[in-house]
Amino acid sequence: MDKELMVFMQDVLPFWAKLDPPQQKLLADSVALKTFENGSSMHSGNEDCSGLFIIKSGRVRVFVFSETGKEVTLYRLFERDICIFSASCILKNINFETYIEAETKTTALLIPTKLYEQLSQTSLAVADYTSQLMASRFSDVMWVMEQVLFMSFDKRLAVFLLEQENIEGSGRLQITHEAIANHLGSAREVVTRMLKYFRDEGMVELFRGGLQIKDSKKLQKLAQN
Amino acid sequence: MDKELMVFMQDVLPFWAKLDPPQQKLLADSVALKTFENGSSMHSGNEDCSGLFIIKSGRVRVFVFSETGKEVTLYRLFERDICIFSASCILKNINFETYIEAETKTTALLIPTKLYEQLSQTSLAVADYTSQLMASRFSDVMWVMEQVLFMSFDKRLAVFLLEQENIEGSGRLQITHEAIANHLGSAREVVTRMLKYFRDEGMVELFRGGLQIKDSKKLQKLAQN
Repeated sequence: MDKELMVFMQDVLPFWAKLDPPQQKLLADSVALKTFENGSSMHSGNEDCSGLFIIKSGRVRVFVFSETGKEVTLYRLFERDICIFSASCILKNINFETYIEAETKTTALLIPTKLYEQLSQTSLAVADYTSQLMASRFSDVMWVMEQVLFMSFDKRLAVFLLEQENIEGSGRLQITHEAIANHLGSAREVVTRMLKYFRDEGMVELFRGGLQIKDSKKLQKLAQN
Repeated sequence: MDKELMVFMQDVLPFWAKLDPPQQKLLADSVALKTFENGSSMHSGNEDCSGLFIIKSGRVRVFVFSETGKEVTLYRLFERDICIFSASCILKNINFETYIEAETKTTALLIPTKLYEQLSQTSLAVADYTSQLMASRFSDVMWVMEQVLFMSFDKRLAVFLLEQENIEGSGRLQITHEAIANHLGSAREVVTRMLKYFRDEGMVELFRGGLQIKDSKKLQKLAQN
């Protein structure tokens, strides 16, 4: 493993310093750097159990999927985030299926499942870290759930567009109505109808394959309402 | 602590045998038996952090609550279940609020927060157990989420009524339309409308303050559809 990756890993994993030298060596020797192209799948459902990904660069989307093909985004992961559900097989009692895909070209360090399992059975620091990671994702998912349950669709769409503007660093969003529907667990027609309403209200401008945010303040007001 | 409670606790807590004798003594000395009347609150939001409840008898409902007063049931707990979110303050990274109430008269053993925190910082078995418990509740919540996201309301209501029949051990359900709405995160009028449709289809009979399931098979067919 090269030195830069080594430093990155030590820096990202809060339990590193609490491992003993043989465990550190084992971990350093077992981790591999993987690259995923834009749009490619990193994990699909529970039969797939590659291990824990530490995102080195790029952007990752974690979502659920219904039998009828409806999708909802649970959360996104960025540089330095750890992807726990790609190792869901080692999490006892997890019986739902998540799907993970690279939203942009992504590089990630992979800690193999077997090794992580070994570490968490012998190190209290690793077990505690796993717990904290799960609690964090649980909170992310509860946030989505509360949005879905308690928020009207116009508000959710406004929140999503602002979040997207924030991630992209620009109000010009290259995203189809279909893709937005998949993030929000809605239907394309519903998104199209609401975006047309947003356009009529002067909040966005629509173009083929995307949209431009015109009035962030008005969108924010709607989102916070 | 009396002998019967002691045996119950040892039996319910999978990590008991892995604690050392001083830890076992500390736990046995600190646990207290609490009683909650039908409908009373056991935990409300995150400022409230009494500890872990082990349900000894009764039935408990865990739910979330919106600013506008809308409720949704996340899961139910029964005898021998452990209530982890009543100690949410010790779960790092949990930043959503849950509410817990006794649905019937409930007795529960309370493990104080401080003590449980101590144990999970020193015992790998306790840390691992906490993780598993959280994973289990995470799965429960994902099940609700997938229902809310992907299932039509008639199906959700059918699933709920059958579950209720199963819990009560009878098809005669003493539950108001308002209470059903609170379980499902819906509005009373929506529940009333759908129940009238179920009645017209011969699946239920309505009476003041409740309903009677008349055709479980038809309801099941709807639920599985």
